[in-house]
Amino acid sequence: MGSKPGWEALVADKRKRQAEAIPKEWKIQLPPEERLDVRDVPKECGLLTLRELQITELDDVEALLNNIAKGTWSSEEVMTAYYKRAIVAHQLTNCLTEIFVDRALARARELDRILKETGTVVGPLHGLPVSMKDQFLIKDLESTLGFASLVGNHSKEDALLVQILHEAGAVPFVKTNVPQTLMWGETHNLVFGRTLNPYNRKLTAGGSSGGEGALLAMKGSPLGIGTDVGGSIRIPAGFVGVYGLRPSYYRVPNGGCLTISHGEESVPAVLGPLSRSLSGVKVFMKAVAAARPWDRDPFTVRKAWDEDAYSLIDHGGKGGKKLAFAIMWDNGHIVPHPPVMRAMEETRAALIEAGHKVIDWAPFPYEALGKNLERIWASAGNKSLLDVLAESGEPVLPSMALDPAMKGFNKSSIGTNAYELRKLHKEKKDLREAHFAQWQETARLTGTGRPVDAIICPVAPFAAPPHGNNKYSFYTMALNSLDCTTSVFPVTTVDPKVDVRRSPHKFYNDRDRRNYESYDPESFQGAPVALQLAGRTLEEEAVIAMTEIVDEALNSHKEVRAKL
Amino acid sequence: MGSKPGWEALVADKRKRQAEAIPKEWKIQLPPEERLDVRDVPKECGLLTLRELQITELDDVEALLNNIAKGTWSSEEVMTAYYKRAIVAHQLTNCLTEIFVDRALARARELDRILKETGTVVGPLHGLPVSMKDQFLIKDLESTLGFASLVGNHSKEDALLVQILHEAGAVPFVKTNVPQTLMWGETHNLVFGRTLNPYNRKLTAGGSSGGEGALLAMKGSPLGIGTDVGGSIRIPAGFVGVYGLRPSYYRVPNGGCLTISHGEESVPAVLGPLSRSLSGVKVFMKAVAAARPWDRDPFTVRKAWDEDAYSLIDHGGKGGKKLAFAIMWDNGHIVPHPPVMRAMEETRAALIEAGHKVIDWAPFPYEALGKNLERIWASAGNKSLLDVLAESGEPVLPSMALDPAMKGFNKSSIGTNAYELRKLHKEKKDLREAHFAQWQETARLTGTGRPVDAIICPVAPFAAPPHGNNKYSFYTMALNSLDCTTSVFPVTTVDPKVDVRRSPHKFYNDRDRRNYESYDPESFQGAPVALQLAGRTLEEEAVIAMTEIVDEALNSHKEVRAKL
Repeated sequence: MGSKPGWEALVADKRKRQAEAIPKEWKIQLPPEERLDVRDVPKECGLLTLRELQITELDDVEALLNNIAKGTWSSEEVMTAYYKRAIVAHQLTNCLTEIFVDRALARARELDRILKETGTVVGPLHGLPVSMKDQFLIKDLESTLGFASLVGNHSKEDALLVQILHEAGAVPFVKTNVPQTLMWGETHNLVFGRTLNPYNRKLTAGGSSGGEGALLAMKGSPLGIGTDVGGSIRIPAGFVGVYGLRPSYYRVPNGGCLTISHGEESVPAVLGPLSRSLSGVKVFMKAVAAARPWDRDPFTVRKAWDEDAYSLIDHGGKGGKKLAFAIMWDNGHIVPHPPVMRAMEETRAALIEAGHKVIDWAPFPYEALGKNLERIWASAGNKSLLDVLAESGEPVLPSMALDPAMKGFNKSSIGTNAYELRKLHKEKKDLREAHFAQWQETARLTGTGRPVDAIICPVAPFAAPPHGNNKYSFYTMALNSLDCTTSVFPVTTVDPKVDVRRSPHKFYNDRDRRNYESYDPESFQGAPVALQLAGRTLEEEAVIAMTEIVDEALNSHKEVRAKL
Repeated sequence: MGSKPGWEALVADKRKRQAEAIPKEWKIQLPPEERLDVRDVPKECGLLTLRELQITELDDVEALLNNIAKGTWSSEEVMTAYYKRAIVAHQLTNCLTEIFVDRALARARELDRILKETGTVVGPLHGLPVSMKDQFLIKDLESTLGFASLVGNHSKEDALLVQILHEAGAVPFVKTNVPQTLMWGETHNLVFGRTLNPYNRKLTAGGSSGGEGALLAMKGSPLGIGTDVGGSIRIPAGFVGVYGLRPSYYRVPNGGCLTISHGEESVPAVLGPLSRSLSGVKVFMKAVAAARPWDRDPFTVRKAWDEDAYSLIDHGGKGGKKLAFAIMWDNGHIVPHPPVMRAMEETRAALIEAGHKVIDWAPFPYEALGKNLERIWASAGNKSLLDVLAESGEPVLPSMALDPAMKGFNKSSIGTNAYELRKLHKEKKDLREAHFAQWQETARLTGTGRPVDAIICPVAPFAAPPHGNNKYSFYTMALNSLDCTTSVFPVTTVDPKVDVRRSPHKFYNDRDRRNYESYDPESFQGAPVALQLAGRTLEEEAVIAMTEIVDEALNSHKEVRAKL
């Protein structure tokens, strides 16, 4: 134990200060706890004006930026609208950690003044409110990661990405909730409590960037920034039905982010955007590259935004008229639930209707890849975590300790030796090379002369599950180990009438059987279903462009079906 | 012990076969052992025709390629000339491992036929003989790394880089010698013996790509390919006075190279060129990028050759008329010998004469960086090495075991745990960020508005030392840990009349004192002295262009001084 107060006192202090940071006049009449889908509460609660609702309902971030740049909306009114909606979201889903209204509004007013005086925007994100996972250090604000011992941990300076966003004209306005340890696909910790899914509050919003997910699904932010080491951007994006991007290692600068996994280099964490529109994902990636982060951070890849790559010049020529996709229906380990299978079936149909080629992705030992990454994570033991907890006497959350993926975290261990770690690295490398070779092999099947342009696969073998049940992340983890640039795009929501149980398949294993049995259509009511689109390493531009194509194909497909 | 024959029998077999691979008519009358500088023997020995001497004396690789493409010289006669000279080099310096004359000549004739029939070259390296460090797998040839237990280890396929070079029209024609373990800055092993420095055979040619170094200095190859994890390209390039490039991590594809350090990802080994001209370095890097290796290997950075970067657009505009350099006179740990100091003084004078700015690089804890990398290397113990040796009963070379940098290798150890390894990674990251920040700070001093464009520093604190004395590699290792794109360029040779002992400086430590005392001008007679030019990560194009500028400045400076 350190000299700090006990964890309960620290938590009580932090919660009190967080509550005080919320303007009293923004407190709403809460709906009953039984109300599961709370997405319409912002419209109903009376706090937001019609204009503020109009502002926050606009999903397209480029359109929002245009409206600010043209002066249709001021930065201040956009910030006010989003802040009010974020605070409403927080009251319903418990998604925020740091709240700093005055500071964000002051910067918004400053941006308005600059635009008025100079006639030009300060940068490509002028006036854009941006939410961030609690890991991002912002000068003079706390970063706790939900650890009691880090209450009061005020940052001395901005993380590099925060500086870049600031210079581009974006305004950080809230920080968002994370799971204890960050290494868990649900968002719950002892400092801030549990974050709920706005589509159905009995369901998890995912993790570790789950505060971002819940906030975005409430339209409480136009753009959120998360981190992803095993699915932490993609799982929440998928579970709340927004877009997300896991960029490749070191494409987005991660200097100045808080972590307790110092020195983990085997599968580096990446920073990336979540947004309600692909335009949000794109403007973020373009703005970051335009700031030449490699001139400010030694680790960031020296690679400008590549407009040719975005035009899909390496994927059959500009425009991507005829692409080829592979669908990974399951990973050979756990078969997805019916709504996820339907999402893939609909996506396949939509892509074929749009003139693209779709083939089945062949089996690959994804189970071995997932277990390899679990062992890599466990290799350094849990001393770093226990040290942080011990400082305040904070216990490990029981729900985390129960998660099989977390088994390395709930008992003291010093980890394995570096010789064994190298063997895990060798296995990872061999698997990555084999996966690449398998991808190359698809050139025989596509008819385009190229290997498939992207692989489409589940985010998880289920839609957002009830709290405590997100215990399987191999679908996302595999793409971290393979360093595939990967997007998430929403496809549908669970409809218990349509997504009935399917008859049992031949189970791969007992875990697969238990996953099959866990599907109760009613308990997933209304949960969003999203898919991943995986491209090659350092293909951010092409992956965004291909996801736009898939998204348009899905929209056309839905329109056609709606007319029938 | 495995079921293999003992190491002596394996070595005898390999040496016999190697000797038989040399055409009898290419055996020369050897000069006496006392003859130290053997660089002129190819001209004197009578084996090479005047035309073959003319071909092999042409250092400029672009000019050589032009002569082949125009039909001035056939691929076959270029290959014959270089093969004869390589065999002469081998008889004088013991630089080769694999010798395969017929195969290389057959491919050269095939290239001649294609050029005659089609009128076009097969690729940018049409007809270029390329030598390679023994690590590179070539189908049906052995790769032993100088380990007896790997005698007979024939490759089933070409390494990716070998495939790419083949498709570009280059012809691998010899493989070259390496040190036992590869982790040593001299080239000596029990299978092939010790490689000597052609400038002075009492001196080491460096390592681990020391066979390449000796061969190139004999003009026995126009382009060599090495690998570098702590200086293995730069040390031999520097010790024999040729150009070399350590590219950034993963810029050149390293799939299919033999290693006993599987899974070492902390400071990845890189592949890169050694050549007698910077044009050789450039054509290699351009040809590799043109092959889009990222489409064939999942690890290679997706980054085309950037002609704008080569034009120095990010370094003050096209042409690099006014650059700023920092000189690191010493690393705060070991002060270089007088010839190395003179090389820096001459380079500084030359750059100032050419209109560039030169400042002093401030102290930095390079000792900590070097020790960090030594500990990272030692972290996985020496089991992999001992396993390879045990298969044939081969002992660890005593000279290696005596090298302080090798202390992890001469006694059995399983290494440290992954938790401690993460701490070493964290320290490495912090040091890299601090180094980057220090580099940024130089913008205050350059007068160009930019930080210094590159750092110039020693390759080692001495010129090529007598065999067994290359025991300090922190000057090169630092740039591996920092992942700086780094070239090596020759500056001068040791002249005992000029490079007299200097009076003692204030010693940093006892090792510094011993290094000072070890300088005996006569024993370094004629040794080349080279320097490193370090740019930022993934700045291959700009580093080549800046090295060209330094090289031209040095040539002008020498001309001016010669006229005085």
